[in-house]
Amino acid sequence: MIDESDSGMLSPGWANTNVNTIVGDRAWIEAALEVEAALARCQGELGIIPREAAATIEAVAGSLRIDPRTLAVGVAETSNPAITLVQELQRAVERDSPGASDHVHLGATSQDVLDSATMLVCRRALFELDATLSRARANAAQLIARHGDAPMAGRTVTQHAVPMTFGVKVAAWLNALVDAQTELGRLLDDGLPLSLAGASGTLAAYAAYGSRATNGPFDPFTLVDAVAEELALDAHYQPWHTVRTPIARIASTLTLVSGALGKIASDVHVMSRTEIAEVVEGLGDGGGISSSMPQKLNPVRTVLVLSAARQVPSLALVLHQAMLAEDERSAGAWQSEWQPLRDALRLVLGSASHLDELLATLRVDEQRMRANLDLTGPAIVSERLNVALTPLIGKLQAKHVLRRLLLDGSATGEGLVSALQGELTALGVDPGDLDLERLLDPADYLGASAEIARRALLRSAAFDD
Amino acid sequence: MIDESDSGMLSPGWANTNVNTIVGDRAWIEAALEVEAALARCQGELGIIPREAAATIEAVAGSLRIDPRTLAVGVAETSNPAITLVQELQRAVERDSPGASDHVHLGATSQDVLDSATMLVCRRALFELDATLSRARANAAQLIARHGDAPMAGRTVTQHAVPMTFGVKVAAWLNALVDAQTELGRLLDDGLPLSLAGASGTLAAYAAYGSRATNGPFDPFTLVDAVAEELALDAHYQPWHTVRTPIARIASTLTLVSGALGKIASDVHVMSRTEIAEVVEGLGDGGGISSSMPQKLNPVRTVLVLSAARQVPSLALVLHQAMLAEDERSAGAWQSEWQPLRDALRLVLGSASHLDELLATLRVDEQRMRANLDLTGPAIVSERLNVALTPLIGKLQAKHVLRRLLLDGSATGEGLVSALQGELTALGVDPGDLDLERLLDPADYLGASAEIARRALLRSAAFDD
Amino acid sequence: MIDESDSGMLSPGWANTNVNTIVGDRAWIEAALEVEAALARCQGELGIIPREAAATIEAVAGSLRIDPRTLAVGVAETSNPAITLVQELQRAVERDSPGASDHVHLGATSQDVLDSATMLVCRRALFELDATLSRARANAAQLIARHGDAPMAGRTVTQHAVPMTFGVKVAAWLNALVDAQTELGRLLDDGLPLSLAGASGTLAAYAAYGSRATNGPFDPFTLVDAVAEELALDAHYQPWHTVRTPIARIASTLTLVSGALGKIASDVHVMSRTEIAEVVEGLGDGGGISSSMPQKLNPVRTVLVLSAARQVPSLALVLHQAMLAEDERSAGAWQSEWQPLRDALRLVLGSASHLDELLATLRVDEQRMRANLDLTGPAIVSERLNVALTPLIGKLQAKHVLRRLLLDGSATGEGLVSALQGELTALGVDPGDLDLERLLDPADYLGASAEIARRALLRSAAFDD
Amino acid sequence: MIDESDSGMLSPGWANTNVNTIVGDRAWIEAALEVEAALARCQGELGIIPREAAATIEAVAGSLRIDPRTLAVGVAETSNPAITLVQELQRAVERDSPGASDHVHLGATSQDVLDSATMLVCRRALFELDATLSRARANAAQLIARHGDAPMAGRTVTQHAVPMTFGVKVAAWLNALVDAQTELGRLLDDGLPLSLAGASGTLAAYAAYGSRATNGPFDPFTLVDAVAEELALDAHYQPWHTVRTPIARIASTLTLVSGALGKIASDVHVMSRTEIAEVVEGLGDGGGISSSMPQKLNPVRTVLVLSAARQVPSLALVLHQAMLAEDERSAGAWQSEWQPLRDALRLVLGSASHLDELLATLRVDEQRMRANLDLTGPAIVSERLNVALTPLIGKLQAKHVLRRLLLDGSATGEGLVSALQGELTALGVDPGDLDLERLLDPADYLGASAEIARRALLRSAAFDD
Repeated sequence: MIDESDSGMLSPGWANTNVNTIVGDRAWIEAALEVEAALARCQGELGIIPREAAATIEAVAGSLRIDPRTLAVGVAETSNPAITLVQELQRAVERDSPGASDHVHLGATSQDVLDSATMLVCRRALFELDATLSRARANAAQLIARHGDAPMAGRTVTQHAVPMTFGVKVAAWLNALVDAQTELGRLLDDGLPLSLAGASGTLAAYAAYGSRATNGPFDPFTLVDAVAEELALDAHYQPWHTVRTPIARIASTLTLVSGALGKIASDVHVMSRTEIAEVVEGLGDGGGISSSMPQKLNPVRTVLVLSAARQVPSLALVLHQAMLAEDERSAGAWQSEWQPLRDALRLVLGSASHLDELLATLRVDEQRMRANLDLTGPAIVSERLNVALTPLIGKLQAKHVLRRLLLDGSATGEGLVSALQGELTALGVDPGDLDLERLLDPADYLGASAEIARRALLRSAAFDD
Repeated sequence: MIDESDSGMLSPGWANTNVNTIVGDRAWIEAALEVEAALARCQGELGIIPREAAATIEAVAGSLRIDPRTLAVGVAETSNPAITLVQELQRAVERDSPGASDHVHLGATSQDVLDSATMLVCRRALFELDATLSRARANAAQLIARHGDAPMAGRTVTQHAVPMTFGVKVAAWLNALVDAQTELGRLLDDGLPLSLAGASGTLAAYAAYGSRATNGPFDPFTLVDAVAEELALDAHYQPWHTVRTPIARIASTLTLVSGALGKIASDVHVMSRTEIAEVVEGLGDGGGISSSMPQKLNPVRTVLVLSAARQVPSLALVLHQAMLAEDERSAGAWQSEWQPLRDALRLVLGSASHLDELLATLRVDEQRMRANLDLTGPAIVSERLNVALTPLIGKLQAKHVLRRLLLDGSATGEGLVSALQGELTALGVDPGDLDLERLLDPADYLGASAEIARRALLRSAAFDD
Repeated sequence: MIDESDSGMLSPGWANTNVNTIVGDRAWIEAALEVEAALARCQGELGIIPREAAATIEAVAGSLRIDPRTLAVGVAETSNPAITLVQELQRAVERDSPGASDHVHLGATSQDVLDSATMLVCRRALFELDATLSRARANAAQLIARHGDAPMAGRTVTQHAVPMTFGVKVAAWLNALVDAQTELGRLLDDGLPLSLAGASGTLAAYAAYGSRATNGPFDPFTLVDAVAEELALDAHYQPWHTVRTPIARIASTLTLVSGALGKIASDVHVMSRTEIAEVVEGLGDGGGISSSMPQKLNPVRTVLVLSAARQVPSLALVLHQAMLAEDERSAGAWQSEWQPLRDALRLVLGSASHLDELLATLRVDEQRMRANLDLTGPAIVSERLNVALTPLIGKLQAKHVLRRLLLDGSATGEGLVSALQGELTALGVDPGDLDLERLLDPADYLGASAEIARRALLRSAAFDD
Repeated sequence: MIDESDSGMLSPGWANTNVNTIVGDRAWIEAALEVEAALARCQGELGIIPREAAATIEAVAGSLRIDPRTLAVGVAETSNPAITLVQELQRAVERDSPGASDHVHLGATSQDVLDSATMLVCRRALFELDATLSRARANAAQLIARHGDAPMAGRTVTQHAVPMTFGVKVAAWLNALVDAQTELGRLLDDGLPLSLAGASGTLAAYAAYGSRATNGPFDPFTLVDAVAEELALDAHYQPWHTVRTPIARIASTLTLVSGALGKIASDVHVMSRTEIAEVVEGLGDGGGISSSMPQKLNPVRTVLVLSAARQVPSLALVLHQAMLAEDERSAGAWQSEWQPLRDALRLVLGSASHLDELLATLRVDEQRMRANLDLTGPAIVSERLNVALTPLIGKLQAKHVLRRLLLDGSATGEGLVSALQGELTALGVDPGDLDLERLLDPADYLGASAEIARRALLRSAAFDD
């Protein structure tokens, strides 16, 4: 499962997932060879190069295995792995069919090849990500189905605030995931662009080779259309060698996804604490163990996801700053994109997969939720008491009375009822039909909790349609 | 023009623009009061509070001037400026109409008010930004109209590559702007969300006040719909106190816009260099002067834009990381958003305005472009010679021959023609109808330059429709 | 207290502290005028300009009040606030003493003035910061004195691990602060540098004015020494207009301080949670209130500090990236430093002050610590049991037995003792003098807790000497 | 040369250097095994474990080869590669000598092992870095020796400012490198810390095992001292599991080094431009080639260094933010450090090595420098003319006259001389002994250029002593 080109032992966000198959060095090399093959095939079909040469190039590109280390040597000599890749391909084509190598990479610049290959890699990675996120949503929906009605303490600024249900908690997770997939979907619907613009973005050499072949004018955008269709990329008619919107949008989208995953993990992080213990990760044997403490069951996937979510925005930042690319092709900005983009893909894909499993196996302790809710006694419904007392004694006075009673320690349920009654009597106020007992039941003050969970489920289901 | 609340003397990206009017402290305060007014009006209309109280609240909120410094004191006491704002409003309402203050801010949590106010501020800022970017595009289109056909050197990795036109350069700028506005347009089309979810996101107090008034069940989403319509915000039925997609999307969009502005400024930065001097900023008197060197005419707006573009991704990063917001309302993450969001808005709005003027007044020196192009002599069309020689002597040999001739110094036009003819003769190759003179003219090797500029103009025009 | 130039209502990290007095626009302006005054005085003393002119310049610079908004207009015209400042000073000097303005800013470049002024502002800010951190350490030491021996649960990966004392917790805080102040102290001991290098860093104009006055060669480093001494800055003989080590070191130091503050706040954040409640912020009346929930006592200073600590690294990043400054003076990089540096100073100074108060007033609940410790029952000393059982049944088997017993729910103290005895009997092992009761007492397994706290106090005290 | 664990083909900053040998997965594994070996040896010597067991552990740890992929699987199960590493070691020890595995990792927590191993890796990496930077300085000094006196245009805000020498340019590079090595030296002089604090930082299990062995009290700091000496790490008596100063300082130092490298590359980037061409990278055959344009000689090492320098601050940011580590050991923050720290080391080490070669082989074109200088004609000494004219017609009027003459195109040398004489005559001013010809020679207005270069060399030499 783990590709040799990076073990991931220091990258818990994606270790032991299938990400290297999708975005490892070899995936990039294969994608680049696909681009060369598509270019040759289309140039063959358009009569720009001999059809036999095109067939040879396609066949060789399809079976060639280039050692990533060869490209690593090349990138240090030319600052560009595609140059060495093209040389390797030319050599292999020439071996196979002498003379045919003249027809490799015709009109192209190395950035065309690498950028287009990057888009192929990204498209596969992002579709995989999309599928993983959908699975994660299905698991979140299951949590609502099973435990959505369980009352628990809503927590704000670290403190118990008012009661809610676990359904509201998971609704937030579901919403974060739908939001992320919405952006992801747009990106994929818009299509990732082909890069086919030549040395300075003018397509001059594509045109020159074309018109040489046709002995007349040749519209190089015909070639763009053909190659784009071949690779299922978007035919982008404007050079984007230094207009890096496609990369920046991917960066933003990955950040949004990562933020959604991190939000969920942040909640599980809190709820897993020994003193709170409302959820526990469902780990297999050997999961979550400590090297020194036999009793410990550490959260694991939560940590994997959080460690990734803390890195992705910084990687995205490098990509966002690479938008400041000078000239027709930049010196430094472009080259700074490659690894951060790959790392961001690795971390987001890997952690999405971890998050999916986290949700699939999360154990929810409804009793503990209730016990924690009761910890705050009647204080957790103070907002409601405030609502109820306002018509009797005014909003501000109600707040003062409640604050005084709740903070001085008499805040057990029974004590509060009689203390409040005493206060009202002292103020000469008739409580009327005020049912203090019922008002103090946290499970009776859940507001629109059920509706929120229901709507989140509907929204998620609607997204799938 | 400059608001006192921050002079901008250390923020060249937005200094002396109108941004503080749009996103200064006072704009935030007014927006928060608008939210309170809208809430009161809708609660009045729904019978939750007396209509007279609603009218009073609306009137007071409309005329109240709260000193930002009062909120600064408050934020240090409660970590939340909205709490003090609500108290100030209550006090003013109570002064105006005793008892009416009980009906202020009913059911709301401070984050509802501040988040909704933030969305109002952002919407105005983003519409302003959109208009500025459209003006900038119009100016870029003018540059193409006036100078689009001028040949110039395409530059890659700091070196002359192949010829192109200035139209291709500006097409890149236009594309970057259209890309940015496309994302911006989506954000605005989707609508920025209202926040109306109450203490823990359950709308419990909104519902409680509602049902108290109606003596029966009350659907709090009715209120959400009403307030959203009142404020022209999107009725977001899911609490987003800690699902920060709206903020993260704004951050990403601002980053994309900033990257587009920065890309353009990066190009002008290069082209303005003394040795290149293909463009000069059209500054008024006193613009671009130096404190010590009388002769200098420094680029200014370029610098303003670049200084902003170097900061925006980092501010966006803070916002992206704030997505990791724990619980129903977070302690630290939310509060870290306010100033970076405001600063990002300031920098992007300000620098868009500077960029617009930069494009409007840019002076283009076509002769200098041609002179620079000629600097590289015939080498700049070496790619084309390669295309032409490939059928005669093979691609690889062509490249070797050209590389040798071009790097050894004989690379003046005439010299190269005879040297090449010599090489071909030595190889026993018949040059046929190879018109070396024509092949060496850079202005004859512009590829699809004209078409690229034309399509960029069309794309920009289509966006405006 | 709050300077008008930025209210801070959206910057909880520094709102309502004295930071604007120290790093506001006006502080920068005054520092720049001090630099001009010092330059004039030294040039007067060296005979480069008339002594009377020098006296006039010094007097005018000392009393001139320049409106920051004037410089904001200027920065938009020249990308440099110092140019306008020099013009304003020249105008004022000329008004006071016609002809004297010829002697203002002689030989200097605007960056000399602004960079030197920045160093003056930073030095004052950093000394203030140092004093605040020392106060914070004294308060931390007090916490150890009062509560250092209280046993509590050590927590790792969100779970109870082994027992420790509150002294170990505060020792970490103290160490973080000593570490930060160590770096800060080095920075201040090294001295912040004067910038006095002229237009391109060659000091040519300083030398030219000097030799004109002396009618012979003039060593401009004499002037550097004099001005540096006058301003108590370090005489830096090498131009640092684009060698930004001084700024980068300040950025790193502020980040380290901010990280230390944030570490402490992160711990308080956890310990303040309703379910844990081992510490509570000691807030005055009105502190920590909620706009909707009467019972709430939110942590406030914790939040202020955390909100700042989440922003400082990003601001530092902008400063670190500005090290990539091209040429003798850069176009974009330098200008991007000003506001992030000021913001980082504001946030770190402000949040250090908030943290100091947090520590000064923190209320510690030793009973709650003990109650939380007991929550984990005997499991919290499982590591110790492992140590004790290893010689009897081997380390691995001991771990398996303990894991099984502790995770299956029999993990109350008494139950565990007899269960373990049963296991040993079943394995035919003689427990010998194993005192299981004592081994199970968390307060008897504190390791070097006391020693760690003691050493942290010693280290902190040693730092003060 | 290239380790299989990451080819670097997408990481031009370190591709094809020896960094993976130093900071690859295997380096980390070996360092962790060294830590376990040192712990066992010291515990053996202190009588805590049998000497034979210690010898076995040391021998096995010294020869064991653990596949990084095994740890990658482990990190996904436990969020911690050290747990699996310890298990692998125990298994190997047990195979070698049954029973001995009970004495492996005694008292330790996985973070002790991983943090200490990280410090071993960092120490080696940083010493290597230090040596590389020293070599780079020697090469810079050679550049001064060979070309230091060559006059060239000083450039500010993209424009020619005043003349200087190439020695001033390289002096800046030398200063940036000395600055960086000064910080690096401090870090290494202070010593990188051992981590030996146990599960919750109390050293409780170390103490328990110790006192079990000695049948009496055991001071666990004895063990800390012994292991620290064994590993040549600093005996840090305070737990730093969540006081991350050591990591943050390394991050800051790497950022500073990277900034220095990036500053140099930024200058070479400008000076390499086709239109400027004052320096050219000295590349071997195949270096700097383009895949499409035969004539091109792209800068390569400049690009490699710049691509790295654009990433390091973002990686450092992740490390700086990880200072906000909650509890005694954090869940997410710590784990987010590993890969960014490794990547920062890779990029800085790799790019330092590329920069060293860049300086070693840089070709300097003094004639082109002079030709560029002459481009600006007399304008480049306008500052000097201002100095000379000030006593005659006042500073402001001098500036206005010069600005007018220099910007209107009469700015050739001869023209300017007579124009200025005309102006003075018109103003009725006697030029006295004003030698305008000499004043106009750029090579006569180099200020302290020579002295600056000399002092930079001295400073660098002094650093080496």
